[in-house]
Amino acid sequence: MTDLARLLAAISAPPRDGEAAARRHLDSLTKPPGSLGRIEEIALRMAILRGRAPEVRNPVIFTFAADHGVVVEGVSAYPQIVTAQMVENFARGGAAVNVLARQAGARVIVADFGVAGPVESAPDLVACPIARGTANMAAGAAMTREQAVRAVETGARLADEAMDGGADLLGTGEMGIGNTTAASAITAAITGASAEQVTGRGTGVDDATLARKVAVVRRALELNRPDPRDGLDVLAKVGGFEIGGLAGVILAGAARRVPVALDGFIAGAAALLAVTLAPAARHALFASHRSAERGHARALEHLRLDPYLDLGLRLGEGTGGALFIHLARAAALVWSEMATFKSAGVSESAPEPER
Amino acid sequence: MTDLARLLAAISAPPRDGEAAARRHLDSLTKPPGSLGRIEEIALRMAILRGRAPEVRNPVIFTFAADHGVVVEGVSAYPQIVTAQMVENFARGGAAVNVLARQAGARVIVADFGVAGPVESAPDLVACPIARGTANMAAGAAMTREQAVRAVETGARLADEAMDGGADLLGTGEMGIGNTTAASAITAAITGASAEQVTGRGTGVDDATLARKVAVVRRALELNRPDPRDGLDVLAKVGGFEIGGLAGVILAGAARRVPVALDGFIAGAAALLAVTLAPAARHALFASHRSAERGHARALEHLRLDPYLDLGLRLGEGTGGALFIHLARAAALVWSEMATFKSAGVSESAPEPER
Repeated sequence: MTDLARLLAAISAPPRDGEAAARRHLDSLTKPPGSLGRIEEIALRMAILRGRAPEVRNPVIFTFAADHGVVVEGVSAYPQIVTAQMVENFARGGAAVNVLARQAGARVIVADFGVAGPVESAPDLVACPIARGTANMAAGAAMTREQAVRAVETGARLADEAMDGGADLLGTGEMGIGNTTAASAITAAITGASAEQVTGRGTGVDDATLARKVAVVRRALELNRPDPRDGLDVLAKVGGFEIGGLAGVILAGAARRVPVALDGFIAGAAALLAVTLAPAARHALFASHRSAERGHARALEHLRLDPYLDLGLRLGEGTGGALFIHLARAAALVWSEMATFKSAGVSESAPEPER
Repeated sequence: MTDLARLLAAISAPPRDGEAAARRHLDSLTKPPGSLGRIEEIALRMAILRGRAPEVRNPVIFTFAADHGVVVEGVSAYPQIVTAQMVENFARGGAAVNVLARQAGARVIVADFGVAGPVESAPDLVACPIARGTANMAAGAAMTREQAVRAVETGARLADEAMDGGADLLGTGEMGIGNTTAASAITAAITGASAEQVTGRGTGVDDATLARKVAVVRRALELNRPDPRDGLDVLAKVGGFEIGGLAGVILAGAARRVPVALDGFIAGAAALLAVTLAPAARHALFASHRSAERGHARALEHLRLDPYLDLGLRLGEGTGGALFIHLARAAALVWSEMATFKSAGVSESAPEPER
């Protein structure tokens, strides 16, 4: 049995036998039942997933970086060297995800899954390149199936190490010039949407570049014909190394019943790959936010996930997941720190209102 | 000149001459321009309001409590004594707003603006009752105009004291059995909506109680005929002491250009009163979230505010404002802690994408 097969075999839906008790606990707290809305939903889902009280003490955000051969088609507003430059920015703590993770008390694990340009080594940077960028998916497969498996297994290994160290919430972030093009192709392949429906402006391309990007996604799909029922085939043909790595993080979190905060469009594509490989993985997924990138809504619909934030974010890196940590922690703290009607001596809702 | 007249005279729209520089600063940070969506909008609005960099170091949430004579009409699922019981719960730190404020590093100032039942004094509880609950607005005015002025001035005074102590973000919370009925009447009076359109289930009343509540709101409006252009008249006839207090907090924040995080439906009603008295106060307002209470959308539309969170909250107390603090702080930290393209040596967007 390969590592990946073992991982997939470990994923199942959490038992729901604690659900009634969890609801009773939430309703015993000094607030009208359900009045904290989706904060209560988060608490309930985390309690069911974990089989015990929700806690968010050690959130970890995985920011995986890699380059994409498809950039030679002119699909991005930024040159490829920006991937390497941003990895160095992450390592120095100056990027948005660093700022938002610090605020949320989360560790950021930055990993080089296959950056093309040279990256200065740094103490907090994990070097695990699969190759120096993918091949151009508009001219052939982006990677071999063996590389796809390795990307997923490497992401899962990094997540396992973090969970061994106590990580109790996993955030999924990424950086890679050209990776919205790969995510669009993955999303189209798995959801059955057209290239137009799932291809957006990424970092902010103009109309001409957007049209080219749509055409490139269509060509990559026609040329490679990825099998929508096989996430590894989709990853190999039109994916990216960092996206495979995030699929690994999702699968590892699901296997150990640790909640996974999806970030935006790229993380959503990784989730599509993951649930193709292990459908029960979706129980571990929390959609942090609805990205401004158009294909994201389609991915969330396919995943049957309703996002918690809608702030027009389209940065990636794990920034939406970092903001979601505050909501997840709020849910955990409400669960554990609020007084109950009984402990506080507060009267409960009368069956008949006083007149 | 009365205290209130002085306060209103001090409120004007912030100058917009810093806007271009603020936008340039946000665009110099290592992210595609605008890619942090509404987080950037919050940063920009705070920068314009304050006339300097946004900061959220000392957020303070005002949780004002009072009772409502209208409860004798049978409009709530909870008995009136719950207002006093919850004030004691706030003072002991066991309510939802305490938990969420602690998480957000915010102080909660709990003030008794007119609770009917006896409230045990506590070190952190401000006693400033206007009267022991309002009169029944379905049978006459809820309070005198003099009481209305006193409620607003008292709220403004508490906010001023907090700002003297360094408060840089003001949250608006409340507790008062029956206060969604008052908020519905205020919202209908000022927006011109019907009682049906703005009256919801509050703490969770059944269909029969909801029908009664709508009828009570309609009767209170027909009987009292509040003047929609005069917030003090609306407050006196169909308002509540805690709602007047929150209007005072909003006006005081606006006068000193300190951002005010509106909570839900009741805080929205207070904001409607405030902008009737001083239209420029809306520049200081940030709509934390869209409440599940139906009238809230109508109030936000009238205020031309687009809420940041949509989590189905309907608790009040200041809980939505507490969650918003994380977003406001994220905006401030992005502004001050992110690297710039220049400082990080990251290439900016090419005018023509590479091919």
